[in-house]
Amino acid sequence: MLASDINTVSTPLSAYALRQLIRAGDFVSNTSGFAQGCVQGNIVILPKDWVGDFLQFCQFNPKSCPLIGMSANVGDFLLPELGQDIDIRTDVPGYRLFKHGIFKQELTDIKNLWRDDLVTFVLGCSFSFEEALIADGLEIRNISESKNVPMYRTNIACKPAGRFSGDTVVSMRPMLAKDAIRAIQICSRFPSVHGAPIHFGDPKLIGITDINSPDYGDAVTIKNNEVPVFWACGVTPQLALEQTKPPFCITHSLGKMLVTDIANSTLAVL
Amino acid sequence: MLASDINTVSTPLSAYALRQLIRAGDFVSNTSGFAQGCVQGNIVILPKDWVGDFLQFCQFNPKSCPLIGMSANVGDFLLPELGQDIDIRTDVPGYRLFKHGIFKQELTDIKNLWRDDLVTFVLGCSFSFEEALIADGLEIRNISESKNVPMYRTNIACKPAGRFSGDTVVSMRPMLAKDAIRAIQICSRFPSVHGAPIHFGDPKLIGITDINSPDYGDAVTIKNNEVPVFWACGVTPQLALEQTKPPFCITHSLGKMLVTDIANSTLAVL
Repeated sequence: MLASDINTVSTPLSAYALRQLIRAGDFVSNTSGFAQGCVQGNIVILPKDWVGDFLQFCQFNPKSCPLIGMSANVGDFLLPELGQDIDIRTDVPGYRLFKHGIFKQELTDIKNLWRDDLVTFVLGCSFSFEEALIADGLEIRNISESKNVPMYRTNIACKPAGRFSGDTVVSMRPMLAKDAIRAIQICSRFPSVHGAPIHFGDPKLIGITDINSPDYGDAVTIKNNEVPVFWACGVTPQLALEQTKPPFCITHSLGKMLVTDIANSTLAVL
Repeated sequence: MLASDINTVSTPLSAYALRQLIRAGDFVSNTSGFAQGCVQGNIVILPKDWVGDFLQFCQFNPKSCPLIGMSANVGDFLLPELGQDIDIRTDVPGYRLFKHGIFKQELTDIKNLWRDDLVTFVLGCSFSFEEALIADGLEIRNISESKNVPMYRTNIACKPAGRFSGDTVVSMRPMLAKDAIRAIQICSRFPSVHGAPIHFGDPKLIGITDINSPDYGDAVTIKNNEVPVFWACGVTPQLALEQTKPPFCITHSLGKMLVTDIANSTLAVL
């Protein structure tokens, strides 16, 4: 079964059914737009001696690293709090292996890499707030143009924690000012999926020199009457990991998230 | 007693005590910064045959015309719901009389003009949200520069109601983007005092040709790294009244508000 077929079936796939396809190797594409209503998460997997530092990094930088779940015990590859039968070794469509901060390999499962000293972290993702914005009638340019959201390295330093440090990565969505104001209101309800934007307007003020050349993802159209609006992004910990260089680390691949059973609506603080 | 003395007394004046000074003619200045914590209101006084249209105008344009009180009965000059012993004929430091939409006279009391067919409307005012923003550590430029907030006519048409129509007037406060985001969050809690901003950034997009030449109030400094942030303003109904030209109308004078006994904090919806 191809991902392109899945979108056309009359009954939308549940998060569980989608994970089963992923596990079987029958779904390897981006997860954006699938299992709508369910929280999707950024993944970071680290050896246990890096856990304390990483937890503190998330604690110190909650807008870019909003932790929504982690392994109950060292070595656990099941994440029952996040969904039925989730096996983190097989249920993400794409993984990236890093050794000493260097990207080594893209994988579709990590069964052969699993070790008893690994701990999984799941961080909130912008798909949840994009769904809330669309439900309110706002246009999300990366979705309407079928692109990956543009992401940029900024000069906004994360608060260092132990061995972890790095600059904040942001995602950008162009909007009319009045829609940006509404987006700020809506996203403020969802602190665990990056919350309100952290900047809008002049990209240079946060160290972005060319808005049309994102560091990750794709450029999108910015109309004359729009302003770029910037959210803290879940790629921030990946950048910190590249700079911190733990000997072993696995993340998800860009746009290929862990799809959980948690309803997006349950993340709203009001 | 001079207004300049009042600010230096050790015990701040209560709203009630301030109204007594105003009533006695001993306080005729702007009310900004006095009786902190208490709601201040824009005033519109109209003959009863204009009440239905004006109420509908407020209903249709809640961001610029947030109604927080009105006379219980036609001809009432007391407003007991808004504060102890409030007499609208004497308790506002400055009034403006309009006839057929033409400004006629500035007054410090309207006892001689009062008629049995008049109805008073009290609309929320930006002083309440400015207090909330300052409490959060934000700088309000018009306050730090000791100026009246700059206000501008825009090309944003109010929704007409009966004989009332007109364009929206906005107040402007320059801010860093990150402070503007916080201001949007804070002001969203206070819909009855204009709520969240309605625009930020390029003034031309809402019909403002020269940000340094406000139509009302004073220009304030806008730093290079700041954006102008625009809120719907309580001067909007005054502009509508000038265009609608009721034969008789009284408003407060710019910055000289009715000071009520209502706590600003009680206006928060969350």
